[in-house]
Amino acid sequence: MTLSVGRVDHGDCGKRQSETPDGRPGCMQPTVDGARFRERFEAFNEIGATERGGVDRPSLSPANRETRDCLVEWFRTAGLDVTVDEMGNLFGRRAGADDSLPPVLVGSHVDSQYNGGRYDGVVGVLGALEVVEALDDAGVETERPIEVVAWSNEEGVRFQPDMLGSGVFAGVFDLDYAYAREDRDGNRFGDELERIGYRGDAPCEPRDLHCYLELHVEQGPSLDESDRSIGVVEGVYGFSWVDAAFEGSADHAGPTPMHLRHDALVAASDVVGAVRRIAGTGGDDLVGTVGSIDAHPNSINVIPERVEFTLDFRSYDDDVVDRAVERARREVEWAAEREGVDWEFEEIMRIGANPFADECIEAVERAARSVLGEDDHARLVSGAGHDASYLREICPTGMIFVPSVGGVSHVEEEYTEWADVVRGAAVLLEATLDMANG
Amino acid sequence: MTLSVGRVDHGDCGKRQSETPDGRPGCMQPTVDGARFRERFEAFNEIGATERGGVDRPSLSPANRETRDCLVEWFRTAGLDVTVDEMGNLFGRRAGADDSLPPVLVGSHVDSQYNGGRYDGVVGVLGALEVVEALDDAGVETERPIEVVAWSNEEGVRFQPDMLGSGVFAGVFDLDYAYAREDRDGNRFGDELERIGYRGDAPCEPRDLHCYLELHVEQGPSLDESDRSIGVVEGVYGFSWVDAAFEGSADHAGPTPMHLRHDALVAASDVVGAVRRIAGTGGDDLVGTVGSIDAHPNSINVIPERVEFTLDFRSYDDDVVDRAVERARREVEWAAEREGVDWEFEEIMRIGANPFADECIEAVERAARSVLGEDDHARLVSGAGHDASYLREICPTGMIFVPSVGGVSHVEEEYTEWADVVRGAAVLLEATLDMANG
Repeated sequence: MTLSVGRVDHGDCGKRQSETPDGRPGCMQPTVDGARFRERFEAFNEIGATERGGVDRPSLSPANRETRDCLVEWFRTAGLDVTVDEMGNLFGRRAGADDSLPPVLVGSHVDSQYNGGRYDGVVGVLGALEVVEALDDAGVETERPIEVVAWSNEEGVRFQPDMLGSGVFAGVFDLDYAYAREDRDGNRFGDELERIGYRGDAPCEPRDLHCYLELHVEQGPSLDESDRSIGVVEGVYGFSWVDAAFEGSADHAGPTPMHLRHDALVAASDVVGAVRRIAGTGGDDLVGTVGSIDAHPNSINVIPERVEFTLDFRSYDDDVVDRAVERARREVEWAAEREGVDWEFEEIMRIGANPFADECIEAVERAARSVLGEDDHARLVSGAGHDASYLREICPTGMIFVPSVGGVSHVEEEYTEWADVVRGAAVLLEATLDMANG
Repeated sequence: MTLSVGRVDHGDCGKRQSETPDGRPGCMQPTVDGARFRERFEAFNEIGATERGGVDRPSLSPANRETRDCLVEWFRTAGLDVTVDEMGNLFGRRAGADDSLPPVLVGSHVDSQYNGGRYDGVVGVLGALEVVEALDDAGVETERPIEVVAWSNEEGVRFQPDMLGSGVFAGVFDLDYAYAREDRDGNRFGDELERIGYRGDAPCEPRDLHCYLELHVEQGPSLDESDRSIGVVEGVYGFSWVDAAFEGSADHAGPTPMHLRHDALVAASDVVGAVRRIAGTGGDDLVGTVGSIDAHPNSINVIPERVEFTLDFRSYDDDVVDRAVERARREVEWAAEREGVDWEFEEIMRIGANPFADECIEAVERAARSVLGEDDHARLVSGAGHDASYLREICPTGMIFVPSVGGVSHVEEEYTEWADVVRGAAVLLEATLDMANG
């Protein structure tokens, strides 16, 4: 895609400017400035940039602090009223014509996976900032206030669980629970938040919101495979996370005959295979993953004594997830029985399927039609959890996906065509306008 | 077993003093002092002691340096002439009647696994020291000189490969190669040896030896199961070590459908199961182990992109090991093909089966009969590699095993009845006398 210098209107997204749903004059039609947006995106991603083209900005890291400083500056420059809450969630508020009305909240997150990608979360926060600037450029005042938000600790790679900032905001987790989360080195979330200077004063608790909208990369292959630019997200898969372990005997790999072994890794490998079988037969949309495995003592010539591993099952059908977890639990028992080892199996997280609000799904779909015409969007369900999964607990919520090339995400190679990012922001702008005035 | 205070003669091992093979007068018969030996053993194992009753003294660690300081002091107190060679191997020499004759070398190692056991290596070095002190006590001069040795870096957990000190001494490895070995943090063996002050001046190279004898715990269950006190070791299993890896794609565990996955852990788990099958069908004495596995990025919600793992196959029949490695290589290829991932497979170490010298096996067996009578020893083959495996390249070599309770070793729970340790030292004394005078 060729970007014009300066302002990019809908024409650059391949759509006609006159197709706005409310028939406002084209000249005053707020439009996304693709060049400005990209300039910000590139500058932002210099922070914590990795050699292989990704970013390394885990939650509350020095690089994460830098991105926060940058956002606060940009929010202020855009005339937004900045608030930092007790969880370090950042809000930038643009007043509405009736500022007493509950705001439209728009955003995502900026923490990354370890050596993660440049798009995950970032397009949603910078896209929301672009939305309010486009409104400013066009001199548009909305009925309701609009708030841009960047949630803390969405990825959950340094501090678990993930989506911690939005989870506390939505009343799913207590603040004390969140503060007490520890990273691998025993650093507590609350202390680290204080250390980087982003433990704010504003209460982190549910408040009256008109709706929440989030633009995000799909992180799966569906849009890329079907050659659509925009995903209208109907909801998010439910999922279960399990911590499991086997404990056997750490004998010497040489003199210990096979019949006397109690090898925790053999048992764990049985379960890895079982998870693949369960995912293959447990339901159409069921996926199952063993993502993490740690063997002890992990030495070439010692039989593994203890192996800890994780399970991740997801489906849009909660019963399917429940049955998968139960099947996996039995497989763990059977593998332990076969190998003569002890077993542990603990479900550490269970989130039901999260359908979004019809009014938000429809607003996003109208916006997609308006920006892209009839045939460049698709309704879909998200396999990944998002901050929107928790926001939907307290207000009508919707999401917009843009394609992940090859379905790849959570790695440095994560990539979305810039034209698609701009289309996503344009749809977000339309949907936000719709909800802020509707 | 009840230990008398002070001197323990063969009677304490349940055997008659008069059963010495050479008919020397009983009163002058050198005997192991079990109480002294135990006092040393306990004092020595206070160094690097762990809470769970083991020791943590990996190669060239501060605790390993402390054990070296302790040995040097004890060697000197015992009147031995101490030499440290370029690999940090420690020698303590007791002169012979004809000191120009090649010496009988007796010893083992004192480096440990990470959180390893108290017996592995230690009983062989302190047992050898007890042998020369028993000879001193009895005023016995041997025809040939006797040297006590503690080899560097036998375990191979910090610096690979294992048996590095004896390997260089036997001419299997170059000194430069050994010095360049790096630990996980990139510290080189040569630099660390220098740092702890044990890079000696004596050349580490093959020299003329009459024989090498080593007392060691069995590290397997055979003696414990058959209720024998002494193993007369006929040789050591050959083994192969392989570094293998799969490399697929690190996609998000939620939105990535099962049919698009290239999961390195699923492929690795197939191979763990295959190794168990190969060990079960590849030969009577064949054992196979995947001891180490590392997944990347090792995150609960990311499909494993890369999994590195190790293979260890052992048998006393070299053809059996070769066939097992070849079967495993094909299993790796097939697993990669099934999962659509890349594979790596590199044999990093191959040691053939090592039969010991008949003269040493027979000397050990005569000593066992002399000390224990007819029925308390068994001939066996070692599944674990030992310094003796390399020494046999340059001189007649033999080993004496004492039982590992439950066959357990390389862990803190490693345990040998003290009475068996004393019996082992008594057999070592007899065999050493036999070889030093024969």
